[in-house]
Amino acid sequence: MSSDPDVRRFSCPAPRLDHDTIQLAHGAGGRLSNDLIEQVILPRFSSPELDCLEDQAVVELPPGRVAVSTDTFVVAPIFFPGGDIGDLAVNGTVNDVAMSGARPLVMTVGLVLEEGLPLADLVRVLDSMARAADRADVRVVTGDTKVVPRGACDRLFINTTGLGVVPDGVSLRATALEPGDAVLISGTLADHGMAVMTQRDGLSFAGDIASDTAALHGLIAELVSACSEVRALRDPTRGGLATTLNEFAAASGVGILIDEPALPVRPNVRGACELLGIDPLHVANEGKLVAVVSNREAERALKVLQNHDLGREAVQIGTVRGDHPGMVVMRTTLGAERIIAMPVGDILPRIC
Amino acid sequence: MSSDPDVRRFSCPAPRLDHDTIQLAHGAGGRLSNDLIEQVILPRFSSPELDCLEDQAVVELPPGRVAVSTDTFVVAPIFFPGGDIGDLAVNGTVNDVAMSGARPLVMTVGLVLEEGLPLADLVRVLDSMARAADRADVRVVTGDTKVVPRGACDRLFINTTGLGVVPDGVSLRATALEPGDAVLISGTLADHGMAVMTQRDGLSFAGDIASDTAALHGLIAELVSACSEVRALRDPTRGGLATTLNEFAAASGVGILIDEPALPVRPNVRGACELLGIDPLHVANEGKLVAVVSNREAERALKVLQNHDLGREAVQIGTVRGDHPGMVVMRTTLGAERIIAMPVGDILPRIC
Repeated sequence: MSSDPDVRRFSCPAPRLDHDTIQLAHGAGGRLSNDLIEQVILPRFSSPELDCLEDQAVVELPPGRVAVSTDTFVVAPIFFPGGDIGDLAVNGTVNDVAMSGARPLVMTVGLVLEEGLPLADLVRVLDSMARAADRADVRVVTGDTKVVPRGACDRLFINTTGLGVVPDGVSLRATALEPGDAVLISGTLADHGMAVMTQRDGLSFAGDIASDTAALHGLIAELVSACSEVRALRDPTRGGLATTLNEFAAASGVGILIDEPALPVRPNVRGACELLGIDPLHVANEGKLVAVVSNREAERALKVLQNHDLGREAVQIGTVRGDHPGMVVMRTTLGAERIIAMPVGDILPRIC
Repeated sequence: MSSDPDVRRFSCPAPRLDHDTIQLAHGAGGRLSNDLIEQVILPRFSSPELDCLEDQAVVELPPGRVAVSTDTFVVAPIFFPGGDIGDLAVNGTVNDVAMSGARPLVMTVGLVLEEGLPLADLVRVLDSMARAADRADVRVVTGDTKVVPRGACDRLFINTTGLGVVPDGVSLRATALEPGDAVLISGTLADHGMAVMTQRDGLSFAGDIASDTAALHGLIAELVSACSEVRALRDPTRGGLATTLNEFAAASGVGILIDEPALPVRPNVRGACELLGIDPLHVANEGKLVAVVSNREAERALKVLQNHDLGREAVQIGTVRGDHPGMVVMRTTLGAERIIAMPVGDILPRIC
């Protein structure tokens, strides 16, 4: 076992720093910065580029169009059921890159740490990031660490920027929807947002709600290689499914009709949403994708999703329409139709 | 004049948002997020990729190795003589990409905004970023905006991640230094750090100290095309020249000897350093580079630097030595030699 590089990598010796909390000097660019980087960060993310310790990485990418995505993660609390800010930051950027059809390859990591952050918390987050990057087969090639005084940020923020290469012939765009297309979702709604929300508010009844944070690049690769008429993919994160569908409808100038009874929501998540008066359509997901596929390929796409661990509960939730362009309409359980608008305000701040 | 696209771009109409400060809802992914992005951010950074408003940009890069660099800027105060957090964030990442010899091409921008930030301050910072990106001929291709509650960050933080392409045959590395090489600096030391420091502490005597923030890609392109024996380039930011030289010496296993009388420091900067007991070798620069060049090409390299607006005050400050490997030694004005160590602690927190 101990000769397995993965085991070695994820059982890095405890760092021998002079402090057990983050000090301002860990971000000053001097010796303590170097200690933090060399003892805590490098052993977890070691890659040929990162180990050079230059101010930039020089990477060889395969030929093709480059997909680039950036996100800063500010979720509170930083640990929640099903994940933490670390795997969320890796999976979120892997997903945003992959939604273009690209294979994610490399990633940068920018940390902002609050003075006084327990080193043990940082190590736990970095271990989680390293495992997520390994699972997604993405190399961390360069990074940056800043420390701000106590009170100038809340524990830690993480920026991840990912690069991938889009296969020839793949072009997924929010503007490509056509009337008749099928709208699919890869699984249940609102798990991530409600997991963070209930954790934050200490709602003990909701103990078994867990974040769905996961990297979807593998699911997408299978979908895109099996189906040539995928119009667009997007992960319904901040603003939830309602926002993603409204963005799609506006970009393509089409209407979208969804069926309320078809929307998959776990009973405990639905219960928590009802108790708190929150619409699950407005809640962030971190391991789900919306796929819009031609009607002709809808069945095949659904099967591909359902055959993958991360898409077992995939269903068709609606169709693209020529009428009411730019609008999303839901046929409710009672048979009425109502307009699904984007959320205006802030339901769940700092959800990702 | 008004038909000049640059003039139009930098005289965007004032945004008509419902609020004159940042609200939590501006980061929630719903309608207010969209208003902020479409009225405030897009008009300033418009590019073919950004205007798609996908969660990732798909870019066509010229063939070649890709240089990637990331930095999160947390400088306080956000406005200081000679610049602000906006142009600093663009120039800093342009420089880190360019120090590999690459031509910087595209950039991502990740904003973390504190609830209550005056919209006018955000607009001023974004205008400054847009001008800096234009000057550096770099396209902003994708971005992310988060809002955190009052007190969860200090005003705003900016992550920039830049991509460029390294010309064939160019390979600059901190490990490439050889005894006999010349160590050059492109201009005066410590301007940026002391500008921020004096601003922060309200030292009125130092009113004419200004940050040197500038994008050095043009200077580097000329240097690299004129000289084939440039070993390594680095911008001495956090930790100052002392840190950069120590990193070079350690990476290459060589000694570096510098001459104190040769170090260019403006009299007012030197005065402020002396008053505050700060060594200018430890202070951040944001528009300077250290170039290590073969002895044979030192004269030519110096001329190339001096012929460029951003290198007029370039000088040779030292040489690479075979003795005392891994150490930096300074021959002082009085003729003595002393070891220049990396700063251990934090002299100037939040300098970039």
